[in-house]
Amino acid sequence: MRTGIATVCLSGTLKEKMQACAIAGFDGIEIFEQDLVTSPLSPEDVRKMAADLGLGLDLYQPFRDFDSVSEDILQENLRRADAKFKLMSRLGMDTILVCTNVGTATIDDDDLRAEQLSRLAELAGDHGVKVAYEALAWGKYVNDYEHAHRLVDTVDHPNLGTCLDSFHILSRDWDTAPIEAIKPEKIFFVQVADAPKLSMDVLSWSRHYRVFPGEGQFELAKFMGHVARAGYSGPVSLEVFNDVFRQSDVERTAVDAMRSLIWLEEQSAKWLDANAASLAAGAASGDSPANAAGRRRYPMELATLPKVAEPAGFNFAEVKTDEPAQLETLLGQLGFEFDGRHRTKDVQLWSMGQARVIINEQAPSHSEPAIAALGFDVDSPVIASARAQQLKAPVVPRKVQADEEVFQGIAAPDSTEIFLCQGSPDGTAAWTHEFGEGLEHPSAGAQAVIDHVNLAQPWQHFDEAVLFYTSALALEPQPFAEVASPSGLVRSQVMVTSDRAVRLVLNLAPVLQQEPGQQEPGQQGPGQQGNGARKSYQEHIAFAVDDLVATARAAQARGLDFLQIPANYYEDLDARFALDPAFLATLKELNLLYDRDANGEFLHFYTATVGNVFFEMVERRGNYDGYGAPNAPVRHAVQYDSVHAHNLHR
Amino acid sequence: MRTGIATVCLSGTLKEKMQACAIAGFDGIEIFEQDLVTSPLSPEDVRKMAADLGLGLDLYQPFRDFDSVSEDILQENLRRADAKFKLMSRLGMDTILVCTNVGTATIDDDDLRAEQLSRLAELAGDHGVKVAYEALAWGKYVNDYEHAHRLVDTVDHPNLGTCLDSFHILSRDWDTAPIEAIKPEKIFFVQVADAPKLSMDVLSWSRHYRVFPGEGQFELAKFMGHVARAGYSGPVSLEVFNDVFRQSDVERTAVDAMRSLIWLEEQSAKWLDANAASLAAGAASGDSPANAAGRRRYPMELATLPKVAEPAGFNFAEVKTDEPAQLETLLGQLGFEFDGRHRTKDVQLWSMGQARVIINEQAPSHSEPAIAALGFDVDSPVIASARAQQLKAPVVPRKVQADEEVFQGIAAPDSTEIFLCQGSPDGTAAWTHEFGEGLEHPSAGAQAVIDHVNLAQPWQHFDEAVLFYTSALALEPQPFAEVASPSGLVRSQVMVTSDRAVRLVLNLAPVLQQEPGQQEPGQQGPGQQGNGARKSYQEHIAFAVDDLVATARAAQARGLDFLQIPANYYEDLDARFALDPAFLATLKELNLLYDRDANGEFLHFYTATVGNVFFEMVERRGNYDGYGAPNAPVRHAVQYDSVHAHNLHR
Repeated sequence: MRTGIATVCLSGTLKEKMQACAIAGFDGIEIFEQDLVTSPLSPEDVRKMAADLGLGLDLYQPFRDFDSVSEDILQENLRRADAKFKLMSRLGMDTILVCTNVGTATIDDDDLRAEQLSRLAELAGDHGVKVAYEALAWGKYVNDYEHAHRLVDTVDHPNLGTCLDSFHILSRDWDTAPIEAIKPEKIFFVQVADAPKLSMDVLSWSRHYRVFPGEGQFELAKFMGHVARAGYSGPVSLEVFNDVFRQSDVERTAVDAMRSLIWLEEQSAKWLDANAASLAAGAASGDSPANAAGRRRYPMELATLPKVAEPAGFNFAEVKTDEPAQLETLLGQLGFEFDGRHRTKDVQLWSMGQARVIINEQAPSHSEPAIAALGFDVDSPVIASARAQQLKAPVVPRKVQADEEVFQGIAAPDSTEIFLCQGSPDGTAAWTHEFGEGLEHPSAGAQAVIDHVNLAQPWQHFDEAVLFYTSALALEPQPFAEVASPSGLVRSQVMVTSDRAVRLVLNLAPVLQQEPGQQEPGQQGPGQQGNGARKSYQEHIAFAVDDLVATARAAQARGLDFLQIPANYYEDLDARFALDPAFLATLKELNLLYDRDANGEFLHFYTATVGNVFFEMVERRGNYDGYGAPNAPVRHAVQYDSVHAHNLHR
Repeated sequence: MRTGIATVCLSGTLKEKMQACAIAGFDGIEIFEQDLVTSPLSPEDVRKMAADLGLGLDLYQPFRDFDSVSEDILQENLRRADAKFKLMSRLGMDTILVCTNVGTATIDDDDLRAEQLSRLAELAGDHGVKVAYEALAWGKYVNDYEHAHRLVDTVDHPNLGTCLDSFHILSRDWDTAPIEAIKPEKIFFVQVADAPKLSMDVLSWSRHYRVFPGEGQFELAKFMGHVARAGYSGPVSLEVFNDVFRQSDVERTAVDAMRSLIWLEEQSAKWLDANAASLAAGAASGDSPANAAGRRRYPMELATLPKVAEPAGFNFAEVKTDEPAQLETLLGQLGFEFDGRHRTKDVQLWSMGQARVIINEQAPSHSEPAIAALGFDVDSPVIASARAQQLKAPVVPRKVQADEEVFQGIAAPDSTEIFLCQGSPDGTAAWTHEFGEGLEHPSAGAQAVIDHVNLAQPWQHFDEAVLFYTSALALEPQPFAEVASPSGLVRSQVMVTSDRAVRLVLNLAPVLQQEPGQQEPGQQGPGQQGNGARKSYQEHIAFAVDDLVATARAAQARGLDFLQIPANYYEDLDARFALDPAFLATLKELNLLYDRDANGEFLHFYTATVGNVFFEMVERRGNYDGYGAPNAPVRHAVQYDSVHAHNLHR
């Protein structure tokens, strides 16, 4: 698949954008006119730079408001087009995007439109230019790709074809199957964008909220499958207008963009495989192109990736600190056992059944304790790592001694290190032998597993993180949630495996809570993205046990510093759920939180915070599948209060 | 008018919110349940604290999903209500908001609803509680205030009344005139919120985008006028869910909120005065309450403010720096004359006709030159200052010597100092005599006026700034615009006087462009808001002249460092406008920008940037009323390039 991206997706100058696209590995780019107009580079400079960078200049765009106008305006538009065709010749470009008229259209007449487009095609032919005609979702008279293509068909000129843009088609819920009926030589260009499903006017939605494939909710693999079935084999190019990407680091965004196309390519191939039967059926009934079933026969090459399966569980979680004492105390009070120190490194292992926590003491001095790494159990660490690297995940450099397990590590967008580990059926981990005296595990102590891990994401890398975990780890995004906190709304994106063995919660904290260091686009290249980032917001690891009340009592006996829950909470809980008084008293006594829904019940408690980390213990009863979201505002308020209330206004 | 605010409008803990509301001068508050549930304060603590702070506890809210349910759920809901009524008794509160059912309603039957509400009212009566029933805009069966009130009317119980919320009414475009038909004793509560007109689902709109009155586009004065005519005299309380306010400094937001109510009070009184005739007509036809015309006869007291008229023009602009040399050079090259130093202060005056620029040399060392103050010509500085202070604008302390003009100064939300000056019919300013040798002005040199000033706003104070200039200076907000820049979209809010003598442009720069210092909520009280803030983004002052080409040539001859406009821009300009070749050549030679619309033409150029400041010279031809917005991306790109391009990737 030939990959492309429009320069309007990225921040910076035209030169910076082109360099970032080349580094990210795109085959070609679309020149967004404004990027050229505002650039000190001459068209000839741009042409040479693209050639030097190995970037094709695949599309010049946009040319607006051409058709459906009176003759005098048409003359003006043809003059304008002539100037742009001459410019394209200097750029060495041969395809221009002409979108349907929004602003100046006054005559709704397909015959007139066809005649006007025909004159444009003729002029384009004189300059060796191909016109790709695109239906904008908010075009005044033409806003449906089938309508636009009927005009192309009517004109029947070699220099006029169709441009298909997934946003303009899917935002209007147009059926994508008829794409297959378009002759491949008449599809001049294909643009892809994803988007969250929002109920707002389509223009605002398009201008601000588009995201890269895999970061939204459109059925893009299906769209691409129909495009491939039509026999198209030209560029598949990202055109994403997004307020955040426009101000993020250009090289990081370009890599994120490239990852989305690599992933889309795989998903499209899968869709074609899964729908080969329907194609055969379609071919039999005569309403599809001449190709027989099977995507391999299509002109468009769809590369495959190393396979991925959902991780089977968390292998470990690692917290980094230079002063481990408080964490040691906390874990001990929770019921974790100290399994010893690593034989060569300054790290400790603590475990409670299959829940393993590593305390890494190699943090720079005076840095706040923070979650530094997560291990996931996968079928094959090598295959999973190969896949992640093909998806442009940066590799974590790691020194190992002889006889030590080699971890395959990649850096997540928020700088958390993700290790791909060899799982075992009994929930043990071979590498634990490197710790202490080589004790056999699991011990006979209390049992627990890591239930979920909650990572805070810098706002400018949130969409990137969703795509990262979707594509590299096969986690599935759940519906988005929002929780009130004293310092703003906290947005929460749960990512899970289908069996819920892995639950990862990505939190988007309010901007003002984030440290300046996190907000800087920085000069990091894609290989180092995030490695230097500091974490400055609270994150936590939650462990599941069978009997939360017993766990809490034992922790209380060991002197654990529980997060203190206000009495008002228990009154409200009683008003909502009419709980058994003895049970309510137990909850209140132990600072436990409670939730209930149609599927089951949820009990949980939190520890005090150490640095940027705290822990949670949970018990799931029945098929409760949530995270106690109604209780999250209480946690946020108490945590906020403990930090702020004593500093202000005294 | 009794002023109120819901705690959900503000950031922080319940205690912090209550303190901020008291400092801002609210009469009462609404306790948003979640703020109480998450608070360590007992209900008795809250009651005592409110009494100590002089705050009424006017409404407990919300009680959700009560009516239109099956009998078993109703029993559960009554139990839940009973618990809340008991809690209210401990809080010393007597009014609760019950909103129409969204989540659990299954039976659409007004008779059943009336019966269920009647049982609730009866229970409330036992506890001395009044139930204010509110139609949510997205209520499942009841989403129209008239429908909700018909139910109240049917039940006819002293403990059941209506709550009117401007958002739920105006977001659905319900007619507000029928409010007058509601008996005043049946309106238990009134909530006000403004909002920008957005085309999105009403729930998202309500939860994230409400703003304080005067910061949006709802016709709130009319809404309030009808409420007053109905004879209501209870609390008028803000209920604003806004993502930004939720994370901004609580005391600043409370002051902003209070300002909005003070302004709304004045606007409502004006609406009543302007519509007294229609009331008399209505009364004659029998469809309005018993009150005769004239708002003074209404039970609701609507306080007035010192009158305001639009400013007649800019009196001066002040730039602060500790190293004035570059600014002096720039102004001299532009054609400004040096009018001398102030007789007692370290400030210089430069002028070009009526355009006066003060260079204030009293900046801390190593601070970037920045726009520090603007002077506006007003009818009466004392009245205007009194008004601003009643609107809670912080006063700028200023030392004056004998015989010097006393400026009335207030601080704008972005920390710019706004001085209210005595205008003069001939465009001179008396205070200029304090400079130099007391030369008479205007001089015989080149003529210019300040055309517009462009101020960058920190994103968390943008809405506050719009209200500030609307209410204190009577500037009128124009439609919002967005401009692309290499580092993100720049949002632009023009504020003008009706004769365009004053044009102020508020720019909202992308978050990543703003300095950390700007994003800190800080511990500033309302009296000091902004005084300590640094400016770290570009702002500019634009001067209008009669002949821009001549001005540019003269400046060029004096060696001015023009902002260099790319050649591509002129090619595009020619493609768009087919300009006369000689004229185009002149534009290109002098780095002039050009725009044209149906009203006229616009020529302008920019200087290089000094610190955070640059200057613009403009010429308006015909009735051109804009700011060359199509050229703004060029300016942003060139300015970005001059800062970034040589630092990156070398």
